[in-house]
Amino acid sequence: MITLYDVRSTTSPNDPRCGYSPFSWRVRFALRIKGLSYKHHWLEYPDIEGIAKSIGADPTSKKPDGSPRYTVPFIYDSTTNKVISNSFDIVEYLDSTYPDTTKMIPEETRLLQSVFADSEHTLVGQFMYPVIGKTMTKRTPSPITPRNLEAVKARGPLPELTDEQEKEAWEKFKNGLGGFAKLMNDEGPFVMGKKVSMADAVLFGRFACTRWLWNETTDEWKDMMSWHGGRWNKLIEAFESLPEVEEYGDAEGTLKI
Amino acid sequence: MITLYDVRSTTSPNDPRCGYSPFSWRVRFALRIKGLSYKHHWLEYPDIEGIAKSIGADPTSKKPDGSPRYTVPFIYDSTTNKVISNSFDIVEYLDSTYPDTTKMIPEETRLLQSVFADSEHTLVGQFMYPVIGKTMTKRTPSPITPRNLEAVKARGPLPELTDEQEKEAWEKFKNGLGGFAKLMNDEGPFVMGKKVSMADAVLFGRFACTRWLWNETTDEWKDMMSWHGGRWNKLIEAFESLPEVEEYGDAEGTLKI
Repeated sequence: MITLYDVRSTTSPNDPRCGYSPFSWRVRFALRIKGLSYKHHWLEYPDIEGIAKSIGADPTSKKPDGSPRYTVPFIYDSTTNKVISNSFDIVEYLDSTYPDTTKMIPEETRLLQSVFADSEHTLVGQFMYPVIGKTMTKRTPSPITPRNLEAVKARGPLPELTDEQEKEAWEKFKNGLGGFAKLMNDEGPFVMGKKVSMADAVLFGRFACTRWLWNETTDEWKDMMSWHGGRWNKLIEAFESLPEVEEYGDAEGTLKI
Repeated sequence: MITLYDVRSTTSPNDPRCGYSPFSWRVRFALRIKGLSYKHHWLEYPDIEGIAKSIGADPTSKKPDGSPRYTVPFIYDSTTNKVISNSFDIVEYLDSTYPDTTKMIPEETRLLQSVFADSEHTLVGQFMYPVIGKTMTKRTPSPITPRNLEAVKARGPLPELTDEQEKEAWEKFKNGLGGFAKLMNDEGPFVMGKKVSMADAVLFGRFACTRWLWNETTDEWKDMMSWHGGRWNKLIEAFESLPEVEEYGDAEGTLKI
């Protein structure tokens, strides 16, 4: 059984939508596409480093002072007794460890997939961060836990976007996705047409994060799902139409928040 | 016959290495892979906008003030009477107009190739710019023409790198390429293994620009060609082993500089 370590929100821990990291959602996307069952170990920002170290998860980058930075997602696979950090490395691990499942990183596109995964933030994701930050910290009741909110505040001042700035960020986000849509064809809902790949996990991760922010009943979400011929909704439907692989009821899954 | 419009240096206009734009070299790479012959129309920075407009080449982006920005490369294809700007769009045009030649942008990787082309600067190329700027403006005799140098200076102060900063930039450039190398396999010299694609044109463009800066006799060039198992040299050899497709002797090709 695979355990996915992820930061939780105030959504029920028995709902995968308790998680909002776009990077963790890349892994959830791959797990469901592959039909690999998993459970969650929910944690909060201040716990990441301690828990990562305790199970031997590698850091994924360095802080400005040169010390190691630990991030979600990381996984523990009890079948192989392996611990893997970093969404791209996790998906590669799943590809090689479970070769009978759908391959997410076709060998000849490996560098292209990695650059896509690394660049999505610059080309699209960055525009949503201030909007997410503003919305998630000001909404009542708060979608993020008090401990997570404290940790976010400790990193620096929260964004103070005007309505105009929020609209601008939203437009840039839409335009970034529009640039992607222009380069995709209509043969299938995926970046590579009919073939699902890591790039779809990257896009789905972004949408899953925004869906957590705006649930399906909001105008923002409905608007986004109509963008670019409704193609992002098709990607989400492709995911939702597959059987659930999340398992619940373990000790971590019922942690009080 | 295709005419490639590009900015010239003080190298002989009868040598394609008169050009140093990494973006123009992407197109040269594609033209030779495809075996499509072409000639050059050399120009200098202050000429770009006027000549582009005179033949109907589209701008490729906007200046900070919102006015259109014209850049090299752009091409004129007398066979179809079409003018195309932007290296990615030019290569796509060549793919569709000459379908019997090697396809550089496989349909299912179209978005991935485009993101790779757009991201190379952030991940690798940006680190070389200050080094190129410093070296090309200080070398005697100057590799760039006096009019080009004036235009470069008019954009802002030239980089004043210390030896230490230059070494750092060079290390970052090497590390960026090293990150790419780790994600490539050894089945062939190309990003997609045995299959050549736009991503190789992007990498080759960067190397052609640095080769112009450091000719093959310099320690810098020899060092670079030994990096990462010598794999970049294999890419260059794959290009150089193909027949030349450049044609010379036309009016533009013999412009005095």
